[in-house]
Amino acid sequence: MAEEAKPQQTLRSTSPGAEELLGRYFPVLDHGFVALVDYMGTDEDIVRAARVSYGFGTRTRSQTRGLVRYLRRHKHTTPSEMVELKFHCAMPIFVARQWIRHRTASVNEMSGRYSLMPMLFYRPPEDQLLAQSTGNHQGRAGAPLEAGLRAEAFRRWEEQRRDAVATYEWLNAHEVAREIARIDLPLSTYTQWYWKIDLHNLLHFLTLRVDAHAQWEIQEYGRVMAGMLKRVAPLSYEAWIDYDVCGARLSRMELDVLRALVCPSGEGIAALPRSLSRTEMESKGLSGREIDELLASLGRTEVPDFELDLSRARAAAFFEEEAAAAVPGGVPKPSEA
Amino acid sequence: MAEEAKPQQTLRSTSPGAEELLGRYFPVLDHGFVALVDYMGTDEDIVRAARVSYGFGTRTRSQTRGLVRYLRRHKHTTPSEMVELKFHCAMPIFVARQWIRHRTASVNEMSGRYSLMPMLFYRPPEDQLLAQSTGNHQGRAGAPLEAGLRAEAFRRWEEQRRDAVATYEWLNAHEVAREIARIDLPLSTYTQWYWKIDLHNLLHFLTLRVDAHAQWEIQEYGRVMAGMLKRVAPLSYEAWIDYDVCGARLSRMELDVLRALVCPSGEGIAALPRSLSRTEMESKGLSGREIDELLASLGRTEVPDFELDLSRARAAAFFEEEAAAAVPGGVPKPSEA
Amino acid sequence: MAEEAKPQQTLRSTSPGAEELLGRYFPVLDHGFVALVDYMGTDEDIVRAARVSYGFGTRTRSQTRGLVRYLRRHKHTTPSEMVELKFHCAMPIFVARQWIRHRTASVNEMSGRYSLMPMLFYRPPEDQLLAQSTGNHQGRAGAPLEAGLRAEAFRRWEEQRRDAVATYEWLNAHEVAREIARIDLPLSTYTQWYWKIDLHNLLHFLTLRVDAHAQWEIQEYGRVMAGMLKRVAPLSYEAWIDYDVCGARLSRMELDVLRALVCPSGEGIAALPRSLSRTEMESKGLSGREIDELLASLGRTEVPDFELDLSRARAAAFFEEEAAAAVPGGVPKPSEA
Amino acid sequence: MAEEAKPQQTLRSTSPGAEELLGRYFPVLDHGFVALVDYMGTDEDIVRAARVSYGFGTRTRSQTRGLVRYLRRHKHTTPSEMVELKFHCAMPIFVARQWIRHRTASVNEMSGRYSLMPMLFYRPPEDQLLAQSTGNHQGRAGAPLEAGLRAEAFRRWEEQRRDAVATYEWLNAHEVAREIARIDLPLSTYTQWYWKIDLHNLLHFLTLRVDAHAQWEIQEYGRVMAGMLKRVAPLSYEAWIDYDVCGARLSRMELDVLRALVCPSGEGIAALPRSLSRTEMESKGLSGREIDELLASLGRTEVPDFELDLSRARAAAFFEEEAAAAVPGGVPKPSEA
Repeated sequence: MAEEAKPQQTLRSTSPGAEELLGRYFPVLDHGFVALVDYMGTDEDIVRAARVSYGFGTRTRSQTRGLVRYLRRHKHTTPSEMVELKFHCAMPIFVARQWIRHRTASVNEMSGRYSLMPMLFYRPPEDQLLAQSTGNHQGRAGAPLEAGLRAEAFRRWEEQRRDAVATYEWLNAHEVAREIARIDLPLSTYTQWYWKIDLHNLLHFLTLRVDAHAQWEIQEYGRVMAGMLKRVAPLSYEAWIDYDVCGARLSRMELDVLRALVCPSGEGIAALPRSLSRTEMESKGLSGREIDELLASLGRTEVPDFELDLSRARAAAFFEEEAAAAVPGGVPKPSEA
Repeated sequence: MAEEAKPQQTLRSTSPGAEELLGRYFPVLDHGFVALVDYMGTDEDIVRAARVSYGFGTRTRSQTRGLVRYLRRHKHTTPSEMVELKFHCAMPIFVARQWIRHRTASVNEMSGRYSLMPMLFYRPPEDQLLAQSTGNHQGRAGAPLEAGLRAEAFRRWEEQRRDAVATYEWLNAHEVAREIARIDLPLSTYTQWYWKIDLHNLLHFLTLRVDAHAQWEIQEYGRVMAGMLKRVAPLSYEAWIDYDVCGARLSRMELDVLRALVCPSGEGIAALPRSLSRTEMESKGLSGREIDELLASLGRTEVPDFELDLSRARAAAFFEEEAAAAVPGGVPKPSEA
Repeated sequence: MAEEAKPQQTLRSTSPGAEELLGRYFPVLDHGFVALVDYMGTDEDIVRAARVSYGFGTRTRSQTRGLVRYLRRHKHTTPSEMVELKFHCAMPIFVARQWIRHRTASVNEMSGRYSLMPMLFYRPPEDQLLAQSTGNHQGRAGAPLEAGLRAEAFRRWEEQRRDAVATYEWLNAHEVAREIARIDLPLSTYTQWYWKIDLHNLLHFLTLRVDAHAQWEIQEYGRVMAGMLKRVAPLSYEAWIDYDVCGARLSRMELDVLRALVCPSGEGIAALPRSLSRTEMESKGLSGREIDELLASLGRTEVPDFELDLSRARAAAFFEEEAAAAVPGGVPKPSEA
Repeated sequence: MAEEAKPQQTLRSTSPGAEELLGRYFPVLDHGFVALVDYMGTDEDIVRAARVSYGFGTRTRSQTRGLVRYLRRHKHTTPSEMVELKFHCAMPIFVARQWIRHRTASVNEMSGRYSLMPMLFYRPPEDQLLAQSTGNHQGRAGAPLEAGLRAEAFRRWEEQRRDAVATYEWLNAHEVAREIARIDLPLSTYTQWYWKIDLHNLLHFLTLRVDAHAQWEIQEYGRVMAGMLKRVAPLSYEAWIDYDVCGARLSRMELDVLRALVCPSGEGIAALPRSLSRTEMESKGLSGREIDELLASLGRTEVPDFELDLSRARAAAFFEEEAAAAVPGGVPKPSEA
């Protein structure tokens, strides 16, 4: 994978933004990366597929944008399945386990049965060693761990990893089958894979994974991939921000609250001179949590920008060498398969 | 399929509402039907699966409802994949072609290569012979066809179908392969299938198919199946109505409009003394169509009820006999496979 | 779709055989076609994905062939999911209905709700008007229809189609919704779609669809697509012929028959001086049909070659104009979506 | 899940063999289990679905067996998608990672973000501490580890796990978010999930997972589930053994070898008085490995029997209590979700 690709001629539709990404490996966390390694199709191809359904017509740039947005708004998702992206990624195993729950992708992962695993482990940045959230049952929140405790946590992890490496090397040195030797590696061990997915399913993945409820570590991957998407298919990215990331799904009860406060007025819309107390909102069927979320939706205004800094990218060889150097006993033996 | 099922003992979880449906065939359109023929799981099983993820706890009825709603609201959809429903359905081929676009189901359809097709054709009810919609490019709308034209339409269809039947019978009488004999049957010919799907994907199907943008004929199927769901998994049905059918997805721009009109106020929510003209809404990035849809969302208040009238159901044998009588030359020969 | 594509520079891996196909529309049946309109990846990319799993090593051409064959032989199919192909196809609706049963593809089909359908119908070639097979319950076989009957069959079809066109035009002229106007079009009406699938699933599709048990009309599509595959990924094509198309799955009982006749002998294999009668084979658990199929497997020797004749291809514009000319009232109105 | 289920009346089709399994938890490895917790359909339902496609007919037991076998032999797999099974399983994380690669299932896994993980770890049995295989690049083979080395391996693992437990408890005691606290747990830590799959996809899973190339630990799960299948759908099980587990896929080249040695003879089959050397086989295109595999196929005769010993089963409560006792600080707090 380290060889330098040479430009070739193609008759396929080509995304200038995607071409710029090919061959660039973006660091994520301390030893991870995401790279776009191949793609098929562009915003234009989504429109082209839609037009097979909807009929013929002219295709100016503004019509492309309008149709991409129309499709996204109305969840006409099949045309965006026509664009495909292939990534090369490295991530800690606990991240890989969340990632693979998305079943609509193709995956080839490094196998700990065939290959020796590189001894690379994820160490959280100091400001991510946070307490269990009380509001979000699956997340972290609140103040960072106090410095002494943090140091103790890192000390314990370092020691465990040193032992895990020593055991793994010892087992391999005694020819124990690799599939057994690896069973006590920690979940923080890095793995890597090729991951291929269509644009529709990628957007679904990203919506869930750049969300604040996702584990921070996988959010980091989501943000880089969102930045890639912005370059590969900028109109789809923009529609995704407007209709998904910064949109909100409101329930019947939430709409009822709004209906009590605003109403169509002529060609426009007007607020009624009223307010609703928390109790009144509850009487419309909203739970306390739902009221909080509705208020948050109406308060939130920030639009995220996942713009990627291309200068952060490295060559594939950088990560390849890091992994090779971390394999016990040096470079693994070539597979004779 | 006509034999009478006898009750048996089971240790599986059992839905009283589902048991009541088994064996009842509900007519749809003029010769179609939907029947629930098997199921696995109930609302309780969704909660049970969720608790594997979330941990242990008590399980009162109100907690079941709360968790089912929480899961639906937050699109934690995997637990609802744990419930499975199997239907026996008959529908015109043009409806079957829309239906089968949902790929996450299992299907066994009657084969026109193996079997003789029953000569049953869909004839739209008079009030559905409508003009092309101007607002909805794929739908119908406006005034019904004028009576004379309607009669002419039916006359033409009758004649075409008579000819199609005659040709099909003639080809079969001359031993032409059935796979060839059927190629000029019209799209209005009825077919039938077994269709199995999990609850999560069924809800997605129903959301699209009870929607006003779906073709009226498939809506008719969607409404009957929604009524079945109401009996099989009433809490899931209720959550689906509240969060999907009667909810709305608002975009960043639509939320911006609302943010200009209402805002959190203490523990509650208050309207600001303002209104926005159509032009002001456009300046927030909404297209004309989006403005119309937002106003419609804020105006809409009706909650559909898909309650099924059990007395409309017929026995399987009713439809079996209708189909058998419509097969050219009577009952098809048994397959020797 | 008629515009002429201009070559562009890309860093993606490029298949010379695929590039040669882009823009060429291959006729199938009387008004159908298949065109490769986009692709991602080559034989080399399958190997590259596999090496992520299996480890590092050198990559000569012969190793690529060896690994592609090894993967196919052992059903390690995930690396071949990394290659993607996108086709533009037109086919009669009864063929489309068989095709769409393959659920692991992405589809955008021309919509009879949005668009006016071109009045193009499939007419079987004279030598395909065959009798129902007695051995294959779903197929055709035996002598072609006698000339007089054949003429009568075509006469009937012509008349039915003339009536169907007249009714469709009449309904459209009276502004009846297109979704209703099309319900009596015959199953022989041509539709078209974009169809995208990965190589692993394409091979599964082709194995079923070039098989003699598939309907002849869809076989015709399978053969053209197999010829395309031969150019896009020649090593995968070759492995598919050797391990799938010309291989055979033998059951425990069939292997028992062979074990009675041949056995390992030193480094080689030897036949024992014996024979087994039909009765003896039946006593090993084979049904009569299974015995016939085993004998056929051992007799069959022909290796199909799906080589495509590039000179048969036409420009996209050829089919576009044919379809446009067949739309009632000429070219359909552009969609304003 | 520990509550005792009471038998209820149902009109659904019921498998006596499946009913006997419900509520029985079968131990696998040292702390794992598999239990069938729900099912839909039986062998009869496969046939019933197939008959929708193939037409009507009588249904004696022998015809059911014949049709189940016919469908399996000819890879008509859609009817077997109509049967669904739901399992509750506990397994080490490295096994879960292999298992989840099967994407056509529904999964709800215990979440280490929400819940405290039970401190249960897999310790291989002494006779499974084997050397890396030389023939099978991903497996183990050869002599067990010498006793002193084995003791040293166990000693190292015990120590690592003790440290991992201490760190996990320490981090939890200091309120570090659970999603962070768990990142250094070893891959041998047990997790658990609900796993639902249809029969067609289960058979595919089992074919791969009872195979000698699968890791021994997941084979152990496969064998128990195969034993369950034998009771739930005995005819499908038998067909799977005969056509898949004990069958073999032969390539074009392997068939060519056989064609040189045996041939149809009258109604039967006869061996020709010949033998083929290894070199002659190679000249037909077989690689050395393929020759070995062909000879192995012709030599193999043993038919596995996955018969389950029901007396090995335990109550759900047994495993529930074991897990609860292994959670740091005792029973986890109930989720308030």
